[in-house]
Amino acid sequence: MQILLFTDFGAADLYVGQVHSVLAAQAPGVPVIDLLHEAPRYDPRAGAHLLAAMTPQLPPRCVVMAVVDPGVGGPRRALAVRAGGRWLVGPDNGLLSVAAVRAERAEVHEIVWRPDRLSETFHGRDLFAPAAARLARGDNPAGIVAACDGFDVMLDPADLAEVIYIDHYGNGITGLHVEGIPAAAHLCIGDRRLVFARTFSAAAAGTPFWYAGSLGLAEIAVSGGSAAAALGIQVGDPVRLKR
Amino acid sequence: MQILLFTDFGAADLYVGQVHSVLAAQAPGVPVIDLLHEAPRYDPRAGAHLLAAMTPQLPPRCVVMAVVDPGVGGPRRALAVRAGGRWLVGPDNGLLSVAAVRAERAEVHEIVWRPDRLSETFHGRDLFAPAAARLARGDNPAGIVAACDGFDVMLDPADLAEVIYIDHYGNGITGLHVEGIPAAAHLCIGDRRLVFARTFSAAAAGTPFWYAGSLGLAEIAVSGGSAAAALGIQVGDPVRLKR
Amino acid sequence: MQILLFTDFGAADLYVGQVHSVLAAQAPGVPVIDLLHEAPRYDPRAGAHLLAAMTPQLPPRCVVMAVVDPGVGGPRRALAVRAGGRWLVGPDNGLLSVAAVRAERAEVHEIVWRPDRLSETFHGRDLFAPAAARLARGDNPAGIVAACDGFDVMLDPADLAEVIYIDHYGNGITGLHVEGIPAAAHLCIGDRRLVFARTFSAAAAGTPFWYAGSLGLAEIAVSGGSAAAALGIQVGDPVRLKR
Repeated sequence: MQILLFTDFGAADLYVGQVHSVLAAQAPGVPVIDLLHEAPRYDPRAGAHLLAAMTPQLPPRCVVMAVVDPGVGGPRRALAVRAGGRWLVGPDNGLLSVAAVRAERAEVHEIVWRPDRLSETFHGRDLFAPAAARLARGDNPAGIVAACDGFDVMLDPADLAEVIYIDHYGNGITGLHVEGIPAAAHLCIGDRRLVFARTFSAAAAGTPFWYAGSLGLAEIAVSGGSAAAALGIQVGDPVRLKR
Repeated sequence: MQILLFTDFGAADLYVGQVHSVLAAQAPGVPVIDLLHEAPRYDPRAGAHLLAAMTPQLPPRCVVMAVVDPGVGGPRRALAVRAGGRWLVGPDNGLLSVAAVRAERAEVHEIVWRPDRLSETFHGRDLFAPAAARLARGDNPAGIVAACDGFDVMLDPADLAEVIYIDHYGNGITGLHVEGIPAAAHLCIGDRRLVFARTFSAAAAGTPFWYAGSLGLAEIAVSGGSAAAALGIQVGDPVRLKR
Repeated sequence: MQILLFTDFGAADLYVGQVHSVLAAQAPGVPVIDLLHEAPRYDPRAGAHLLAAMTPQLPPRCVVMAVVDPGVGGPRRALAVRAGGRWLVGPDNGLLSVAAVRAERAEVHEIVWRPDRLSETFHGRDLFAPAAARLARGDNPAGIVAACDGFDVMLDPADLAEVIYIDHYGNGITGLHVEGIPAAAHLCIGDRRLVFARTFSAAAAGTPFWYAGSLGLAEIAVSGGSAAAALGIQVGDPVRLKR
């Protein structure tokens, strides 16, 4: 069993360490892995597609704590989705919904367990991490979650034809799955029409291109450079496919 | 037992990994948690208040290695403060003093153990990490620390009416504890007078406000945006409370 | 046994977490340490000198996965260098060669093991991490690596008279070993001639100087400030020594 963390808390900031401290105390011996803490801020929609793309490669038995939660402290519910041997825990704002829809059999539960002390602004530390710890250590889920009527917010589970993440090389990751995209297709962003290349080294240096990224999503790059800088792309920019 | 790290080494830089490598070799099996590596650089005063705010939530038995140490290689001593089941180790420049004063019973020790090889500029790796490892694995403290006459530098243990950290969302964390601040109070910074809001979602989008942060400190935010950018705030900016 | 990671993947990005997830699944119980994920991007030459400077301080028995791999997906081989009790795994682009040449007895092997599924752009996750996991858990190397005729690319194993890394304080780390450099020497960069200082606190505030860094390399700093900002230095800038 592993616990994996997917958040917009910032990898360098003081939030992740507090979550790790809670998990080490409440689920001792369970490995905890920082999957991503730079999910687009305040943006559960991009996060939902990114999380769904990462989920298939995760271990078959794990707990994923996913928190992009601009509504923290408000009325939104706390959810735990069971999909096979995996649990996904997080806020009910659509963040878990794309991964849930793509899973074979996903059961949606509400987290009913509450801590003695709950801050208004950091449910990642106070609610989601302890709930994840309890599920990871194999506590009876009956005291932690209860069946519920599904998601309040259901995001479009199909591809998201937008840039959903920009990595530190300046590559733009889109929400488009590459299966079924013919390699002859152009990927268009703004008024640019990008050709396909199989690897970075197969593309001409300095020329923007698209490729099948390691998450199974179409990505945009400039060989040896930064596509984000060269093309001025940002999270949320729409993309389209053309022949 | 856990070891927790609080430094200004930079989360992404090549220093933290070297510390982890030393700890894994010298305290095998002890979980090591990165609490914060982006403490304000060269600033033990802000760091002291931030560390003191984080300490109460740490596990009751742990070793905290706290290093913000612009005087490394100079004459400052190396300290180990025992407060209940916790050890705080770090340089004698005030960094540990606020947490020590706030603890119920804190005993100040000097670290007398020395490694065979001590670089001039990286006592975090060469001195503090091995000392922390020895305390964490339960070695007899007698060979590591010796009683001493307390701090050379004692920082004001009261609140620090300044911004002491800016997180990656752009929220400004102040050194003011929220207990005892009436919610009707305004928090003033520069010529701005900020109202209180309980949660991010309770505040009007785009309006700066203050709130009780998850560390128990007053914080400044802009709902859905960056207070640092909107207000131009920086670590060290003074704040005041007004009715 | 530990696994240590040295890459240009970016500490905050979504790649490192995927590598950790693979390692936790395939080498359970083996500690994994993030040595550096901000090696200069696309630059195996600077990375080779930085990795070689860090290697002597690593545990005597460990596996280092080193990946700075702009040629990923192309024809370059995957290597595993055995040096004493340490394995270094990574691409055959010179990244491992400086550490190999400096080791007492280094045997160069090619990684012949292949995964069922190999992406074109992320061999760190798909090839090098599983190979590192297999070596770390003590599998028979015969199924993983095979003897080979050495490096395709051999970098100059002598010092590299350039800035090879800039840390988050703004200190510039050069590829020059300090042993044998007399302290009276000046280190020159651009048209600046820098004097030696033993510690940060020994230098006059605001004055650039050079010092013996904690990795055994000559480094450039400004006391209490950023040498990178003050001197405008970048990775790749040449340096020279003068009396």
